[in-house]
Amino acid sequence: MKEDRLILVTNDDGIDARGLDALIEVVRHYGEVFVIAPEEGQSGMSHAITVKYPIRVKKVHEEDGLVKYSSNGTPVDCVKLAVNKLLDRKPDMIVSGINHGSNSSASVIYSGTMAAAIEGCINGIPSIGFSLLDYSPDANFSSIDKHAKRVMEIALEHGIPDGICLNVNFPVNTYHKIKGIKVCRQNKGVWREEFDHRKDPQNRDYYWLTGEFHNLEPDAPDTDEWALKNNFISIVPVHTDLTSYEALEQLKNWDIEAG
Amino acid sequence: MKEDRLILVTNDDGIDARGLDALIEVVRHYGEVFVIAPEEGQSGMSHAITVKYPIRVKKVHEEDGLVKYSSNGTPVDCVKLAVNKLLDRKPDMIVSGINHGSNSSASVIYSGTMAAAIEGCINGIPSIGFSLLDYSPDANFSSIDKHAKRVMEIALEHGIPDGICLNVNFPVNTYHKIKGIKVCRQNKGVWREEFDHRKDPQNRDYYWLTGEFHNLEPDAPDTDEWALKNNFISIVPVHTDLTSYEALEQLKNWDIEAG
Repeated sequence: MKEDRLILVTNDDGIDARGLDALIEVVRHYGEVFVIAPEEGQSGMSHAITVKYPIRVKKVHEEDGLVKYSSNGTPVDCVKLAVNKLLDRKPDMIVSGINHGSNSSASVIYSGTMAAAIEGCINGIPSIGFSLLDYSPDANFSSIDKHAKRVMEIALEHGIPDGICLNVNFPVNTYHKIKGIKVCRQNKGVWREEFDHRKDPQNRDYYWLTGEFHNLEPDAPDTDEWALKNNFISIVPVHTDLTSYEALEQLKNWDIEAG
Repeated sequence: MKEDRLILVTNDDGIDARGLDALIEVVRHYGEVFVIAPEEGQSGMSHAITVKYPIRVKKVHEEDGLVKYSSNGTPVDCVKLAVNKLLDRKPDMIVSGINHGSNSSASVIYSGTMAAAIEGCINGIPSIGFSLLDYSPDANFSSIDKHAKRVMEIALEHGIPDGICLNVNFPVNTYHKIKGIKVCRQNKGVWREEFDHRKDPQNRDYYWLTGEFHNLEPDAPDTDEWALKNNFISIVPVHTDLTSYEALEQLKNWDIEAG
């Protein structure tokens, strides 16, 4: 089976990120690997697509069972390019990451790593986004290697349900041993005070995006944030239907359809 | 009440877009208006945030009850800047648009217009994204003016439920009269064949993102696509929890938590 399985790998930290190499090493055990990743870091790009500029791709590496391309596009552009143009068949799986930093809670909405997995999901391809709770470029991914393999094997064994992708976050495994895996819902959280206001040498104002995460439900044990704080790997099944069905019923009672 | 209400207006088509002016004219009836919009079009930017470059803002217009800023940031940056830095109080409402082109079905995921509304929602501010099914820069927004006012009045009367924002799409009202409003779920759809492959004058490959929308459930009368095709205004209540609770139960049965 291994040799028949085609796995597409991407990320948002860029082609040179350690986390990308770590993920390639993990998934090479399970199939032929095609990599296309942004030529530079694209953190926080969410589901952005490039419509104003031409997109270019460059083959940067090739060996038996592994080919790597870089692109000036976003993570979602990378997935679209691979699926629609560069590959001669639909990949059996898309994996994205391993992200340098958390994509739990509301971060899933801002994340380019998770957007790539969500794009895979929109295209009907089983997809997983992986993230490690360490923002450092030198993050130690070897400490989670066997856990990432376990998640891959679980996903390959059970198959990922149609219309969803998996948001997998790993706690840092250096000081505290990982306790296991928890299947979670997305925590409610928000960033606040998000700008550093400065003056440039010409005395003109500018702003750097910064900020602090606020967990709005720190004691909810069914959330990804709680799992990670307690040294569990979190897996959130993510879908692409943003409809709030609860609110839909509520709005229907407004009788606005009649007017 | 009007003079006490502060309404933040943004979009993804940029500060010069006709749809922005149309929306300002609509919402001026209901409060004081603060506008901050990208200095250039940012269609397809989704929930992207700017972390690699400094963000600048420029006041471009001021009159009684209306102030306008432009920014080099994304639509979500615009909301964050206004809420966290530029405004001295939390806006009572955020409206985004009126987008030149549809944000129904899966477009909600790629849309900068809807991302701005979703960012408002994350910050606990009642938010609405408006879109007209006409991509032309010269789209005729006057034809939907009274309908946009009706939606605003409904939202102000009922209040938008906590944790959701509204995705409002208008069919083109020139040839076919709008039949009314439908509260809908997000249609399942996908874009295919999305790249135009070309050679530049140096014979190097490049790609333009393009593509065609495929409706995966054209006959489902409870979807936004169906409503719009049938000349109804669609309203989808959108939330920020991407968890698939159905899949969550399914994954829990995999017994991966035990291992």
